[in-house]
Amino acid sequence: MRNIRLLMEYDGTRYDGWQRLGKNSGKNTIQGKLEDVLSRMTGEAVEISASGRTDAGVHARGQVANFHTETAMSCMDIQNYLNHYLPEDIGILEVKDVQERFHSRLNARGKMYRYRVVEGETPCVFDRKYVCRWPKPLDVQAMNAGAALLVGRHDFLAFSSVKKTKKSTVRELYSVDVYRHGREIFMDFYGNGFLYHMVRIMAGTLLEIGSGERRPEEIKTILESGDRQMAGVMAPALGLCLMEVEY
Amino acid sequence: MRNIRLLMEYDGTRYDGWQRLGKNSGKNTIQGKLEDVLSRMTGEAVEISASGRTDAGVHARGQVANFHTETAMSCMDIQNYLNHYLPEDIGILEVKDVQERFHSRLNARGKMYRYRVVEGETPCVFDRKYVCRWPKPLDVQAMNAGAALLVGRHDFLAFSSVKKTKKSTVRELYSVDVYRHGREIFMDFYGNGFLYHMVRIMAGTLLEIGSGERRPEEIKTILESGDRQMAGVMAPALGLCLMEVEY
Repeated sequence: MRNIRLLMEYDGTRYDGWQRLGKNSGKNTIQGKLEDVLSRMTGEAVEISASGRTDAGVHARGQVANFHTETAMSCMDIQNYLNHYLPEDIGILEVKDVQERFHSRLNARGKMYRYRVVEGETPCVFDRKYVCRWPKPLDVQAMNAGAALLVGRHDFLAFSSVKKTKKSTVRELYSVDVYRHGREIFMDFYGNGFLYHMVRIMAGTLLEIGSGERRPEEIKTILESGDRQMAGVMAPALGLCLMEVEY
Repeated sequence: MRNIRLLMEYDGTRYDGWQRLGKNSGKNTIQGKLEDVLSRMTGEAVEISASGRTDAGVHARGQVANFHTETAMSCMDIQNYLNHYLPEDIGILEVKDVQERFHSRLNARGKMYRYRVVEGETPCVFDRKYVCRWPKPLDVQAMNAGAALLVGRHDFLAFSSVKKTKKSTVRELYSVDVYRHGREIFMDFYGNGFLYHMVRIMAGTLLEIGSGERRPEEIKTILESGDRQMAGVMAPALGLCLMEVEY
């Protein structure tokens, strides 16, 4: 049995996210599209798992996934087959054989997500599906001051849509960088793992700090509260992209 | 009477090009969209002219246009109004008052067009509407050898869809550069003016040279022939973008 690892990108605009759900036929998920094409290609009932589930509308430039198969096709043939039969908003960048025990989710040691914003009326015609428009001017320095308080090992429950659970909601953020890039502002979140909606709620809270609705110091109080109501809005999905997964 | 100059970008994918035609109501042209919003904004019957007409499906990142008006609105207010009411695939980057005699087409001294291509199956998910897919591997060195023969002052009739006419078909190309940029190949055409379809036919001919179907030296013969049939295919509109206009 081979274990095949894929590096891929996708435009999440028209999908219901990565995951094919139990009762959902999965017709409109990235996972569903991939499993359909892989099953047709191999004649097997292929199941694929990714480093993590991206939400509906979230994009990826460096998603990693793996699946098991007995096909004898070369990696190059697999890549060409997938790129030929997948819709044009899903692209396979690399295909390789990996060790039997490799698991794209369990072995992930770090992930980098980027959130992209433009202020006010600034046009962003060519990237309009990948950039969030924020009505007010943003103070990048204040956003970085807030971001610095997110870095480290914390219980991120307040910055998530997770229902209270026995599973740990402690994660470690290695870095958060907010900076201008051309007409846009990038927020790069790099950490060992992220809770459900965590990046988008952190991004929304930093946007409120950037537009002066909150002070950077509030991040501490929010973290300590463990209360979702204390944190800021959840930023829209379209601005978010999974850039890289580390193993 | 004020003369207002706009710097703008647009995603040409869903438009029938720049120009509002006589018998065409112009509903689906960039010019039509702009004139509708400008006329509503000023209460005048505004006519706008651009540095040149882009074909259906061709994009622009630096199109320049101008129009006359008696409105008292500030340039910033005009820009905000336009960006608010124009569709999201047209963006106004700059608005300024210019001298009465400025004409965006007649005063243009140079234009730079970029043609973008990806070879074979290479995915290009996020830029798929702005990059042409070419099935074969490309020899950039051969393309540059061909490109060098296009540079200079020539009768470009063979590289155009112009019907034989009394108007001059002589143009000067200042430079043509073909180079790799990430997974893509860029062809930058910089010249004092371009005939109808000229950039796309030059791009198509260079693509045929790049994939070994023609030799670079053929460019000379094609130019001398003045015969459209001698040149290569017309490359698809989606890969083409007007980058900059010089005055």
